Amino acid sequence: MTINKIKTPIVILNFKTYLESSGENALNLAKDLESAAIESGITMAAAPQATDIFRITQETDIPILAQHIDPINPGGHTGSNLIDCMIESGIKGTLLNHSEKRMKLSDIDEVIKSSKERDVFSVVCTNNIETSVAAATLNPEFVAVEPPELIGSGIPVSQAEPEIVEGTVAKVKKINKKTEVLCGAGISTGDDMHAALDLGASGVLLASGIILADNPKEALINLVSKI
Amino acid sequence: MTINKIKTPIVILNFKTYLESSGENALNLAKDLESAAIESGITMAAAPQATDIFRITQETDIPILAQHIDPINPGGHTGSNLIDCMIESGIKGTLLNHSEKRMKLSDIDEVIKSSKERDVFSVVCTNNIETSVAAATLNPEFVAVEPPELIGSGIPVSQAEPEIVEGTVAKVKKINKKTEVLCGAGISTGDDMHAALDLGASGVLLASGIILADNPKEALINLVSKI
Amino acid sequence: MTINKIKTPIVILNFKTYLESSGENALNLAKDLESAAIESGITMAAAPQATDIFRITQETDIPILAQHIDPINPGGHTGSNLIDCMIESGIKGTLLNHSEKRMKLSDIDEVIKSSKERDVFSVVCTNNIETSVAAATLNPEFVAVEPPELIGSGIPVSQAEPEIVEGTVAKVKKINKKTEVLCGAGISTGDDMHAALDLGASGVLLASGIILADNPKEALINLVSKI
Amino acid sequence: MTINKIKTPIVILNFKTYLESSGENALNLAKDLESAAIESGITMAAAPQATDIFRITQETDIPILAQHIDPINPGGHTGSNLIDCMIESGIKGTLLNHSEKRMKLSDIDEVIKSSKERDVFSVVCTNNIETSVAAATLNPEFVAVEPPELIGSGIPVSQAEPEIVEGTVAKVKKINKKTEVLCGAGISTGDDMHAALDLGASGVLLASGIILADNPKEALINLVSKI
Repeated sequence: MTINKIKTPIVILNFKTYLESSGENALNLAKDLESAAIESGITMAAAPQATDIFRITQETDIPILAQHIDPINPGGHTGSNLIDCMIESGIKGTLLNHSEKRMKLSDIDEVIKSSKERDVFSVVCTNNIETSVAAATLNPEFVAVEPPELIGSGIPVSQAEPEIVEGTVAKVKKINKKTEVLCGAGISTGDDMHAALDLGASGVLLASGIILADNPKEALINLVSKI
Repeated sequence: MTINKIKTPIVILNFKTYLESSGENALNLAKDLESAAIESGITMAAAPQATDIFRITQETDIPILAQHIDPINPGGHTGSNLIDCMIESGIKGTLLNHSEKRMKLSDIDEVIKSSKERDVFSVVCTNNIETSVAAATLNPEFVAVEPPELIGSGIPVSQAEPEIVEGTVAKVKKINKKTEVLCGAGISTGDDMHAALDLGASGVLLASGIILADNPKEALINLVSKI
Repeated sequence: MTINKIKTPIVILNFKTYLESSGENALNLAKDLESAAIESGITMAAAPQATDIFRITQETDIPILAQHIDPINPGGHTGSNLIDCMIESGIKGTLLNHSEKRMKLSDIDEVIKSSKERDVFSVVCTNNIETSVAAATLNPEFVAVEPPELIGSGIPVSQAEPEIVEGTVAKVKKINKKTEVLCGAGISTGDDMHAALDLGASGVLLASGIILADNPKEALINLVSKI
Repeated sequence: MTINKIKTPIVILNFKTYLESSGENALNLAKDLESAAIESGITMAAAPQATDIFRITQETDIPILAQHIDPINPGGHTGSNLIDCMIESGIKGTLLNHSEKRMKLSDIDEVIKSSKERDVFSVVCTNNIETSVAAATLNPEFVAVEPPELIGSGIPVSQAEPEIVEGTVAKVKKINKKTEVLCGAGISTGDDMHAALDLGASGVLLASGIILADNPKEALINLVSKI
């Protein structure tokens, strides 16, 4: 079993900063992802808060992502996230430019480059087709398109705005065959994920729909049940 | 021995984002602080990167501070530092408004308040007498005055600009008797620390002078040798 | 008549970035303020967008404030607001730290100082009693307290939370007798303004209630009718 | 004579926030650009501070650019730059994402779109080939590539790193034929500009080299003397 490998279709769970996904709860949620990955054979990755990365990588085998990496080199940058420190704690990838942590264009470029040099894969979050294409030219492993108005809405982008997923896949692939497209925003059921893959996405980026579920593991199994 | 208590004089080491104070090196540096605290009887606290907090609190007994806390409540704040998560990982205090991570006035107020509610002590970094007084009105446990031009300079503020330390102590105490004043910027020797305490400071906030020392533990013992 | 003098009680109208207060409309609104000032004998000042400062100072005699000044010296700061340039265009004062443009503590300190050196008065906006006191220690001419939840609500702070206005006046005066307190957020009628002055405020900071009024001049005359 | 038309080769002078290019000095500098445009027949445009836009558009006929536009709609955005207000004051174009005012990727996208809707041309500043290509996918009229280490250095990018100018032109044109490439950083003489055009650039973005020249008009005439 290779639950620690990145293969598509992929489910990435952004833990954000909920209490339900902090500390001990974060560890339990990561274990749910691990069980669901073993049971389903689908890659499941977690993006916990920086403070929780180490304890999760010590106790689970799933791929762990940072939620954000700062465009800095080692040195005097109090309060910032240094990629080398996060790698030593076990990250394999990172989210970048999340709608709750938008980044400057030049910083996205810089962090993708330093991630590549260190074999860390990057998932650049974007808000529409145009910024997805712009991000894809910078050569990240993934672009995750999430229309901001649907984030946390419970309305799946794959149903509400399928043309955004389809259009992003088509235009990103034209620019850069190696960048895979994920979709986020409102995805939570097996039907949503099925629709997303049908539209050409290589996986999904999720958050509150799973984090706040009564039974996250069951919700994850349900999510991948129609692939 | 009570190395996990906050008593003055205090030495706080800001680990910043040096490779020499990241990951395994961060853990070793924290152990050096612990040994020096035991040997000297002086309180020594560490402010490591968020990613390293958990592993350090698991293996040492010294007080651990966050380098920064974001003004957020639990929820959707990807890439931010949630106080509750950091507390669960073991922080006892936090730096705020470091010169490398300056904060908005309203955010400093908000984070001091949420820290107090959770018994986390706050150390507000400031750049001069005026901002030290403004910060002191917000009732943090400590203000750490650091003239920016001396940070990382190797020139100790206690010698180069003693009037800033003395003036800060005098004016802060006039506003708020409960806020203690630390000084930073350029402090590294026993003479520097002695001078700082003589000027009325309750301790020091250090970084590169110790982090990059050939023998950090020895440097720490030397630092507190003339108290 | 001395409508260009700053005396209390004062009415300051923040033009924000409404179309109704941009360009030609901004000029007309400033002329309404001027008429109302002449008619009522009350000081009325305008804080238009940077782009509109020059044309308004050319055609009216009321005091003009910047909405924001950046903490910079002359030089390479593309896209920033240089105090010297704004003074040459005729500003007499500036808003700082508005809830829509919060500033770092150290930057508020820096801009108040450079304003004082150039005889520009500063109005520091704040969100509660605590930050008002902190701001007052930095010695601005005015603090304008505006609970964020009431901004643009139409609910006047002087009625909804009179204790905030009263408390701010009492605590600010204890720290710094020279700093006057304004109140904002939801003020629009003569009763609101009367209540604000009764609570110890030296004037009001207004925006949408006047900008979007059918007849701004009439609304201004009404506002000061019960002083 | 059509000095108010945008045709290439173009010279754009970023006034930044120098005293030498503020207020009355800004107006004089704009008149120097105008004289040089008339004398040389080359398009010369100015990007003054927001505060100076109106007075310059009133007294000169050259195209005026904003230094920055904020990603906002009309409403409550104190201290921001609203495109509609700037258009009313006469801008024809705007710089975006200058190295001194870097923008988030999603904000660059948003402001290019609202500029296009209003027939305002945009010049997106970039730091290398990769970010130039990313910016070009967003369809601005111009990309201005400026290696940050050369800005204000006096070392012309067209000589120090010609491969950056050439590479940017080649890769941008491959993505988007309609986006023209400018180069900046260190350009000041006729040879520099000649080299830039030879490398495929459609013009130059300048600042201190002209602003601080003893005789700016002469420097401008010299700059375009070898086209």
